[in-house]
Amino acid sequence: MANRSCIIRLSRYKNALNRLKTLNFVRVFSDNLADAAGVTAAQVRKDFSLFGITGNRRGGYKVDELADQLNKILGKEQLQEFVLIGVGNMGRALLHYPGFERSGISIAAGFEIDPVKYNPDGKPPVLPLENLAEFVKSRNITLAIIAVPDYAAQQVLGLVLAAGIKGVLNFAPICLKAPNGSIVNNINLETELENLIYFVNAHENGN
Amino acid sequence: MANRSCIIRLSRYKNALNRLKTLNFVRVFSDNLADAAGVTAAQVRKDFSLFGITGNRRGGYKVDELADQLNKILGKEQLQEFVLIGVGNMGRALLHYPGFERSGISIAAGFEIDPVKYNPDGKPPVLPLENLAEFVKSRNITLAIIAVPDYAAQQVLGLVLAAGIKGVLNFAPICLKAPNGSIVNNINLETELENLIYFVNAHENGN
Repeated sequence: MANRSCIIRLSRYKNALNRLKTLNFVRVFSDNLADAAGVTAAQVRKDFSLFGITGNRRGGYKVDELADQLNKILGKEQLQEFVLIGVGNMGRALLHYPGFERSGISIAAGFEIDPVKYNPDGKPPVLPLENLAEFVKSRNITLAIIAVPDYAAQQVLGLVLAAGIKGVLNFAPICLKAPNGSIVNNINLETELENLIYFVNAHENGN
Repeated sequence: MANRSCIIRLSRYKNALNRLKTLNFVRVFSDNLADAAGVTAAQVRKDFSLFGITGNRRGGYKVDELADQLNKILGKEQLQEFVLIGVGNMGRALLHYPGFERSGISIAAGFEIDPVKYNPDGKPPVLPLENLAEFVKSRNITLAIIAVPDYAAQQVLGLVLAAGIKGVLNFAPICLKAPNGSIVNNINLETELENLIYFVNAHENGN
């Protein structure tokens, strides 16, 4: 099975292909995709071969065909609906993030425990957390973003999984663990910044 | 030199240690840290040995000492100041993100091209982008977060590096490449969600 890094590279190839499509490119070579994704051409071919995608040494890949194949692998043939739990500063920014819609990702609703933040007529609506299970069941949604404070995150993860969610992207500043049968990916801003600080310092010190 | 994954794990060990400190733990074993970070105890010991950190097989690690060592490696002995470029929805959420301050990370100022968003008296202030170079020089700041729209990101990266910034965390939905002598880490929300979609689907299909 492909690992996380491989799937991230496939997303990058797919994004590069979409840009090439707008430029009316018909064919593309592994070198072009390698440049766009910041990897080697050999890596591109290796990633593709894992999914049985083969090019033509002289002709490269057909842009349309390759984009379709990557979209299929990445589950982008249909609109993917998410729910968002926690409509604080970060949650609100995510609720209105312009990058999602154009990439076939849609936040169906936000959920809150604070009645002041309810907004059933919003686009997307913000609903009471107690309605979560009913909502995801009726819409057949399996994906959630958690953007609650750290102290609430573990409890909210339990609620979300009990509601039938299978995959979670966690923005709360705490590393949540996935119970069996679910996937939890953590985005920890503090960790990302610490990472940056370490490598800038290492670079400055000539390591 | 340590790689990105190793440094991310060090951040997690450090966060776990901080929680143990609040519980008045004096000693900790690699098994405990492994559980907290979701890795094996062997991995914890391997990561530590890379930085010359050794425990005592029977006594484990002293929590205070280990926390100090990790803080030093992660550059957390002093407050790390960042600037933020782009105060839209996402930028505003980052400007007021509660997780930073407590972890020794501070956003010194936000910068904007839209005069409507200027707020020189804010905490932190939002200033005109043209003041960036002077500001980072006077404060000796080397780190920046970019949260501008995708079409502006590459140009803003150029401005930021020209101003003397060495390390950038990019939130714009485009993969920015680091010129020589600089570090650019990309957080791409679309890519993160695609990753989640892939692994949930793979899991559902029993792969």
